[in-house]
Amino acid sequence: MGYYHYERLSALDATFLELEDDNVHMHVAAVALFETGPLANPDGTLAFDRIRARVESALDRSPRFRQKLAWVPVIGDPVWIDDARFNLSYHLRHAALPRPGDTRILKREAGRILSQKLDRNKPLWEMWIIEGVEDDRFAIVAKAHHCMVDGIAGFDLFTSMLRLDPDPTIEPVPHWIPRPAPSPAQLLADELRRRAALPLSLLRRAPDLVRHPLDVVEETRETVTALRETIASGLEPTMPTPLNPEIGPYRRFDWTHTEIAAIDDIRSKLGGTLNDVVLATAAGAIGRFLRRRGVRTSDGLFRAQIPVSTRAHSEKGRPGNRVAMLMAELPIDESDPVERLRRVTDTTTRLKRSHQREGVEFLEKLGDVAAASIWHFFAKLATRMRSFNVVITNVPGPAHPAYLLGARMEGIHPLVPLAFNQALGIALFRYDGTLFWGLNADWDALPDVHDLVGFIDEEFEALLKAANETRGDPPAELEAGEIDPPPPLLTSGPSRDSGTGDPEQREDPETEDTEEASGQAGSDRS
Amino acid sequence: MGYYHYERLSALDATFLELEDDNVHMHVAAVALFETGPLANPDGTLAFDRIRARVESALDRSPRFRQKLAWVPVIGDPVWIDDARFNLSYHLRHAALPRPGDTRILKREAGRILSQKLDRNKPLWEMWIIEGVEDDRFAIVAKAHHCMVDGIAGFDLFTSMLRLDPDPTIEPVPHWIPRPAPSPAQLLADELRRRAALPLSLLRRAPDLVRHPLDVVEETRETVTALRETIASGLEPTMPTPLNPEIGPYRRFDWTHTEIAAIDDIRSKLGGTLNDVVLATAAGAIGRFLRRRGVRTSDGLFRAQIPVSTRAHSEKGRPGNRVAMLMAELPIDESDPVERLRRVTDTTTRLKRSHQREGVEFLEKLGDVAAASIWHFFAKLATRMRSFNVVITNVPGPAHPAYLLGARMEGIHPLVPLAFNQALGIALFRYDGTLFWGLNADWDALPDVHDLVGFIDEEFEALLKAANETRGDPPAELEAGEIDPPPPLLTSGPSRDSGTGDPEQREDPETEDTEEASGQAGSDRS
Repeated sequence: MGYYHYERLSALDATFLELEDDNVHMHVAAVALFETGPLANPDGTLAFDRIRARVESALDRSPRFRQKLAWVPVIGDPVWIDDARFNLSYHLRHAALPRPGDTRILKREAGRILSQKLDRNKPLWEMWIIEGVEDDRFAIVAKAHHCMVDGIAGFDLFTSMLRLDPDPTIEPVPHWIPRPAPSPAQLLADELRRRAALPLSLLRRAPDLVRHPLDVVEETRETVTALRETIASGLEPTMPTPLNPEIGPYRRFDWTHTEIAAIDDIRSKLGGTLNDVVLATAAGAIGRFLRRRGVRTSDGLFRAQIPVSTRAHSEKGRPGNRVAMLMAELPIDESDPVERLRRVTDTTTRLKRSHQREGVEFLEKLGDVAAASIWHFFAKLATRMRSFNVVITNVPGPAHPAYLLGARMEGIHPLVPLAFNQALGIALFRYDGTLFWGLNADWDALPDVHDLVGFIDEEFEALLKAANETRGDPPAELEAGEIDPPPPLLTSGPSRDSGTGDPEQREDPETEDTEEASGQAGSDRS
Repeated sequence: MGYYHYERLSALDATFLELEDDNVHMHVAAVALFETGPLANPDGTLAFDRIRARVESALDRSPRFRQKLAWVPVIGDPVWIDDARFNLSYHLRHAALPRPGDTRILKREAGRILSQKLDRNKPLWEMWIIEGVEDDRFAIVAKAHHCMVDGIAGFDLFTSMLRLDPDPTIEPVPHWIPRPAPSPAQLLADELRRRAALPLSLLRRAPDLVRHPLDVVEETRETVTALRETIASGLEPTMPTPLNPEIGPYRRFDWTHTEIAAIDDIRSKLGGTLNDVVLATAAGAIGRFLRRRGVRTSDGLFRAQIPVSTRAHSEKGRPGNRVAMLMAELPIDESDPVERLRRVTDTTTRLKRSHQREGVEFLEKLGDVAAASIWHFFAKLATRMRSFNVVITNVPGPAHPAYLLGARMEGIHPLVPLAFNQALGIALFRYDGTLFWGLNADWDALPDVHDLVGFIDEEFEALLKAANETRGDPPAELEAGEIDPPPPLLTSGPSRDSGTGDPEQREDPETEDTEEASGQAGSDRS
């Protein structure tokens, strides 16, 4: 038979492949801005070759990025195999902006790149190095499939290119030798052998689980309650809005940023977590945006899906997604910013106590065979059933400046993929004292997404102003001690496949000094 | 019912939709290079807004470019309707090259753009205005679906942007009002009514034609002979080569150019048409390229598909494709350039006399109902059956310089789409005394396509050298009078939908003065 190597995808990772189609693209991404600084060549061009060398060196620590998908014959399960024909020039791309290279032009270029679905015949990532950004900057658009990274914080090829010091050293690159891939017959034989070794009860139950999930899954009283709550929140339909048409393949990508010091001001006066402030701001902006489109925002339920890491600490070194989806109602009809934040805080506090999250975790613990079927079933159902209106996800990053070969990263705007009937996804990344927003929008459905970005800025300012007009004592139920730790509810999982993603080694920006991060002021919106 | 407007696609135009899938993209395209000249703004940037205004004005003369596809319910035939949500910003795109913006970088950018399939939910074209090309130039990558344009010469939105004089005037743009589209029910009712009015005999025969094309089509002795010859040449399999793998979605686009004066030198010494010289040069280059890959080029048949216009002169104003496909064996094993040209000339002379072309025309004349089925049948069959190894198509353009708002067009490299198992397509465009080559190649199958471009240059030089060492009398069977008119065999159809495409108004570059066209020398290959 000979030596060969491959790895099975987890059930959840495989779900991200299953959910993808010609319009629904399941890549996560980020647009990062850098000061060119030491990466400028003497003639003013960007030292692309040095960046390429750094990527090659990072590849050595991230084997997944030289692997591609293969499929077990008959059964159809996906596995990872080394791509013997890996060609870095396909994945790492050099591009430029038309002059003057302002933020409006960069956003348009990013939107074009992020509109393109990743090719399943190759390792599932692209990285675009874009020169010609105004004020002597360059940008990196990093894209990877959700089946291999949790989110931008888990995009370890990208994160391991960066350093917390400006040291420009490039490590020597060892020669890469792909491990032989199994033949289709070997894959099938292995999978049949693996299934034969599974407990019979689990195998037998798998098809029934899909047909009658509630009848069969009666393990304990608590899990059933949890599961019912999960399913219920997944099925009760939300209000129809212009944010929920059937989407096309094209995207607009827009962004802004908020200083974490200002968020802390609000929290010290009004209470709530950083994420409550984000949700309250987004709810205010979305409400205004929808009312301008003629939507009666008080008619019905507006719900945000909030990805939550469910990874246990003992698993932190293991590759794979461990993300569950919570559902939170947003008070988009509330025009008073203080009252809106109070309502958001109530909702998230209640959700933390609810069984929703345990239900999702239980589904995942059922084991790969059963869970894959159930996950596909629920994921498709939740997507098709208008169970939520928008995704809002929040990822912590380093609290100190990061550098690529000595070039300082100014900011990084993350992208969350859109589902079948979601024209808007909001992702946030905390870095160096600033909260960076990334708005992923369907190109045709939201030509006016830049107005939404403006409303976010305005609603945040209104909340800050209202907070500063309030007496300084935080509400009794929110003690200072509860505010400081990063709220587990809204943080995404650590990165995978390498030693760089240990969450305990990552500093929590909320406990850090929150000085101004960069020279940028206000919104970058076009 | 109310007023509504739509147009049916011809059977052949619909075939180009039918043949398309995720890897086989049916757009035609060209990369045109311009001297920036009067289109430079005072600050050195490109006057994109003026180009946009010219495109808007050209749109008024090319209604197809604001139309999108709709589909007759149940029956599934495609029709054109006005796109009420037409948004020029989607179709007309501003981009730039990384410095230094040399030809290698431009080819790479063009390859990326040409790798993307057109979106069927929108008017089927894109035009990219690319600044930052070295030597104060910019480029236009123009893409349109083959179901709406015959080839780049028929891309009337693009051609009507150009002028044969440097006048930079932009015509005022009338306000465009989309005509109402029919409802699905109206489309179906119309189509049923239309079919009821067709001769019964034709309708009844249509399904049989697909099942037993040779038994049923017995109109006359000649047409059957013609049809048999067409089918036979479509079915006899060619040799397997590295040019004929199953292709992926990505493309490399490469190019070179040849002076027509040099081609005329060769013809005056050795005979043959311009197109014979092209085919002989391509055959020599492909032979070398394949032998380097370890292919025994003398083992088996290597065949080129050559698109031929079959449009009658009386139809010239009518929109729609009228293109048939001839098949010509290429002597890729022949290393002597003079003998290779002689063999090519023999083959094309014989093909001109054969019934092949009439057979294809007959298929097309059967009428839309029958022809659509037959076309789909043969087109799919020919594509899957290794009936040809490479497409080579040659389009005449203007013999004098053309200008976009006063900016002179230096050159234009056309692209022909690849079929299912074709990793290489060669298209040629005659313009201003120069023959411009465009090589469309599968990204993964032909990473070394730039070597093929080098071989084309070298093989052309070898033929020119051999011709100059020959006595000056053309072979007896090729009189001067036979050389001058543009050979109908290798010319593509005229453009459509507007008055700009009349072939009688287009000057024949072969009868023109053939002075050097531009300052470029030799190949631009990377």
